[in-house]
Amino acid sequence: MSLPTKESILSANKRISPFIHHTPALQCSSLNEITGAKIFFKCENFQKSGSFKARGASNASLKLDAKQKVNGLATHSSGNHAQALALVAKALQISAFIVMPRTVPEIKKKGVAGYGGNIFECDPTLTARESTLREVIKETGATEIHPFNNYDVIEGQATCALELINEVPNLDFVLSPVGGGGLLSGSALAMKFFSPSTEVIACEPAGSDDAYRSLKSGKIELAQSDTIADGLLTNLGDKAFDIIRKEIKEIITVTDTEIIQAMRLIWERLKIIVEPSGAVTLAALIKKPKKFLGKRVGLILSGGNADLSIVGKFFGNSK
Amino acid sequence: MSLPTKESILSANKRISPFIHHTPALQCSSLNEITGAKIFFKCENFQKSGSFKARGASNASLKLDAKQKVNGLATHSSGNHAQALALVAKALQISAFIVMPRTVPEIKKKGVAGYGGNIFECDPTLTARESTLREVIKETGATEIHPFNNYDVIEGQATCALELINEVPNLDFVLSPVGGGGLLSGSALAMKFFSPSTEVIACEPAGSDDAYRSLKSGKIELAQSDTIADGLLTNLGDKAFDIIRKEIKEIITVTDTEIIQAMRLIWERLKIIVEPSGAVTLAALIKKPKKFLGKRVGLILSGGNADLSIVGKFFGNSK
Repeated sequence: MSLPTKESILSANKRISPFIHHTPALQCSSLNEITGAKIFFKCENFQKSGSFKARGASNASLKLDAKQKVNGLATHSSGNHAQALALVAKALQISAFIVMPRTVPEIKKKGVAGYGGNIFECDPTLTARESTLREVIKETGATEIHPFNNYDVIEGQATCALELINEVPNLDFVLSPVGGGGLLSGSALAMKFFSPSTEVIACEPAGSDDAYRSLKSGKIELAQSDTIADGLLTNLGDKAFDIIRKEIKEIITVTDTEIIQAMRLIWERLKIIVEPSGAVTLAALIKKPKKFLGKRVGLILSGGNADLSIVGKFFGNSK
Repeated sequence: MSLPTKESILSANKRISPFIHHTPALQCSSLNEITGAKIFFKCENFQKSGSFKARGASNASLKLDAKQKVNGLATHSSGNHAQALALVAKALQISAFIVMPRTVPEIKKKGVAGYGGNIFECDPTLTARESTLREVIKETGATEIHPFNNYDVIEGQATCALELINEVPNLDFVLSPVGGGGLLSGSALAMKFFSPSTEVIACEPAGSDDAYRSLKSGKIELAQSDTIADGLLTNLGDKAFDIIRKEIKEIITVTDTEIIQAMRLIWERLKIIVEPSGAVTLAALIKKPKKFLGKRVGLILSGGNADLSIVGKFFGNSK
C-alpha cells in the first residue's frame, strides 16, 4: 500500500465500478435561492450500504490477493464502514467479521447482519474494540480492513470526488465532511490530480472538532464526541492527516443546531434522507454565505443511514 | 375540454416539459428481494412542487388562452394541487388565488405562500370552500383550475405513466394511488394507448375507500377521511370515474399500519422522502405478494410533501 496517485485513483475507479453505484449529483433550485450558491449534491446516501464507505471498503478488499481474502475480512466499527465491509464480503462470497460495541443501536447491528456479517460484541472502549478484533483475527485468519487509516481505503474514497468532477466540471469548491479523514484526504487528492482549480474545504461538527484543532497544532488531537453527527466522532488517522495537512487550507466547524437545520432543509427540499453527518457540508456552506455566493459548489452528502425513530426528536414539533 | 386521446397526451407531454421535471424511475435491490417483484419507483416526490400535481396544473393552465390567463388562476385545495398551481402561476408570471381551510397546517400555507400564491382562508367545509372560491373568482376574474375533475388536468397527469413506460417498457403492472381520480384515470388512459399489455391497478387507503365502493356500486360514493394518507381524502370526480369504471379492474385497499410500514421501507431503503399518500402503492404491492411475484411493476410514488415534525410519531421508538 502506498500513497494514492493520479493513475492509482483512476484504476480504483475502474476496479470498484461493478461493486458500487455511480451516484447522482442533484441540484435544487430552492436551495440555490436560499444559499445564493450553485450547489451540486453528490448523493452518497444512495450509495450501496447507504454511504461512501462502500467505495473504500471495496477498493481495499479487491486489492487483496487470494490468500489474504480466503479467510474473510475483519474490522471494528460502530457505523457505516461495518455495513460497507459486510456488503463487500457478501459480494466477494467471503466472510465478514465485525467487532461492534454492545452499546451500538440495534438498527446498526441489523444492517450488518442483514448483509450476512458476523458480529462480535465488545465493551464500548477503543481498547476493548482493538483487543477483541485481534482475537477475532487470530481465530479466523481474516484480514483487517481499517475504516480510514489505509491508503487503499483513501484511494477508494477518492473516487467519489472524481465521479463528481467528471459529471460537474469547473467546480469552485468541493465540501467534504471529516471524521477519520478518509473521505476528506481522498477528495483532496482527487481535486489535486483532476481539478487543481477546485478548492476542497473540510466540514466538521464543533462538538468533535479534532481535525480543526489538529490542523492548527500540527499534530493529531483527540476527538471529543459531543455531536449528533455520529459518523464523524473518530480521531484522524495519521495517513489521512499527512495528506490533509498538505492539501487542506480551511476547515469550517458547525454546531449541532446548524447540522439539524441543514438536514431538515435536505429532507424537505431535496426529498432525500441524509444522516446528520451527511448534512454537515450544507450546514458549513450556509454558515459562510459570502464565501460561496455565486460559486459552483460540490457538496458531498456522505450517507443516509439515519435512525428514523429519533428523527422526530431532532425536528421537534413545528406546526 | 374533451376526453384525452393518444395524440392529446403526447401533445401535453411536450407542452409541459419546460415546466416540470422528468422524474427518475429508481430501483432498489433490497426492496426487490423483500417483495419478490421487480419494482420501478416513479419518483414524483422529486417533481416540482413536490408532487405529480404539477403535471396536471401546468397542462390545464398552459391550454388556457391569453384572456383566460390574464387575471390569474384559482382553486380551493388543502394540499398538493394548491402548491402546484401557485408554482405554475409563478412560472407564467400571473397570479394564483388559493382558497384554503383555516385548519390546514401552517407548513402547507407556507408552501403556497413560498411560491407567491395569494391565500384566502375559509371554514373547513366543502360548502365554505366552494362559496369562498366563487367570491374570489368574482372579485378577481381568475380562472378556476379544478384539482382533478378537469380533462386537461387528467391529460397532464397521464404524462407521468407515459414517461414511466417510455423509460421502462414491458411493465406487467402500474400501481397508482386514487383520491379524486386524476392520476389514476390519466395512468389508465396512458397504458391503454401506449402499453395495452400493462394492467393499471388502483391503490387506496382502507380508511377512505370510496373508489373501491364506487366501483362496486357503479355510482360515486362519499369518501370518509379516516386515514393518514391526507392526499387521498377527496371524492372521485365524475370525469375520472367514467374512465376508471371502464379501464380499471382492481382496487387494492391498505390500512394505515400498512401504509406506515411501506413509507418506512421507502425512507430507509430508497433513502427518499415520500408522504403517506405516496407510499400506498408499495403497501398494496406488499399486501399481494403472489400477484406480483416475479412481475415488472411500476409504482407511482405520488408525492413527497411529508410533515417532518409528525414523522417521529408515525415511526415510533424502535430501538
